[in-house]
Amino acid sequence: MHAANQVAKRWFRVTPIGRVRRPGATEFDPGAYYDPFAEAALEIQPRWADALTGFEDYSHLLVIFWFERARRARKPRQQVPEGREGLPEVGLFATRTPRRPNSLGVSAPRLLRREGCNLWVSGIDAWPGTPILDIKGYAPRDDLRLDATVPNWLETLWAAHDEERGGHEKMVWPS
Amino acid sequence: MHAANQVAKRWFRVTPIGRVRRPGATEFDPGAYYDPFAEAALEIQPRWADALTGFEDYSHLLVIFWFERARRARKPRQQVPEGREGLPEVGLFATRTPRRPNSLGVSAPRLLRREGCNLWVSGIDAWPGTPILDIKGYAPRDDLRLDATVPNWLETLWAAHDEERGGHEKMVWPS
Repeated sequence: MHAANQVAKRWFRVTPIGRVRRPGATEFDPGAYYDPFAEAALEIQPRWADALTGFEDYSHLLVIFWFERARRARKPRQQVPEGREGLPEVGLFATRTPRRPNSLGVSAPRLLRREGCNLWVSGIDAWPGTPILDIKGYAPRDDLRLDATVPNWLETLWAAHDEERGGHEKMVWPS
Repeated sequence: MHAANQVAKRWFRVTPIGRVRRPGATEFDPGAYYDPFAEAALEIQPRWADALTGFEDYSHLLVIFWFERARRARKPRQQVPEGREGLPEVGLFATRTPRRPNSLGVSAPRLLRREGCNLWVSGIDAWPGTPILDIKGYAPRDDLRLDATVPNWLETLWAAHDEERGGHEKMVWPS
């Protein structure tokens, strides 16, 4: 069994096309809370400027970024989401933990405006300085799943978040 | 200008956690058409089995995969989508071309069932053998954007697809 798992690993490499910038935030402060709904800029490198032509005609986008500060998961970790009593232990793929086999994050922020190579967005939960690997326009046919349902524990977790955050409008589904 | 763009590149590395399997399809046939809505299996490596605990409680998922057969874009390419007359030239980020600076694809298929380390899905547009880098449960709060709008040219393109495919039910929004 162990031997069968010893498949030769292949590696691919990725490189940042830009960075997340949060005006007023220091480049990295592990204790800081970054309001995910505050405006942030996706600063795309000038060399990719021409690849942004027409991008401003999308209202939302998909960003793939690299969890630069997270350790890569080397084992199939399981955890109780946020360590909260009453929630079941689930595997890392069932959560959005940054500790994953590949440190990839996905976010679907609103595109507020484009200023040259800066894409101003709201609704991205990423630290300032986070490397951006790819951006794609959000296309409802491909990306919107109206009938999507989630595990009970996630509904419970969201309800707890809403209560703790005073039911702030910005957290109401669908944000 | 040129000198200013000579920023030292950083690279991160990613490795497959599994592969896409399409029953009955050969591993790679560049001429083949793979019905994206046919059932496909995401074969996750057995070493990650425990990381899948609870994953079956999502109805949909996000898959990040690697466009293994596509050349990486080294320049900010622009193109007329599918080369169709009447459509504007747009930058690669405004399209879903596999020729991107980083060869990353995202898809949001329906999860039909889990059989051990095999996640059976429908609605993934990927060749058999495609390396899977990450999977996440589709969470409406994070991933569903009800009010998303797209460029006019994309609406035009979708309408053309619908007409050419005879308005097949499977292509009707939201699929």
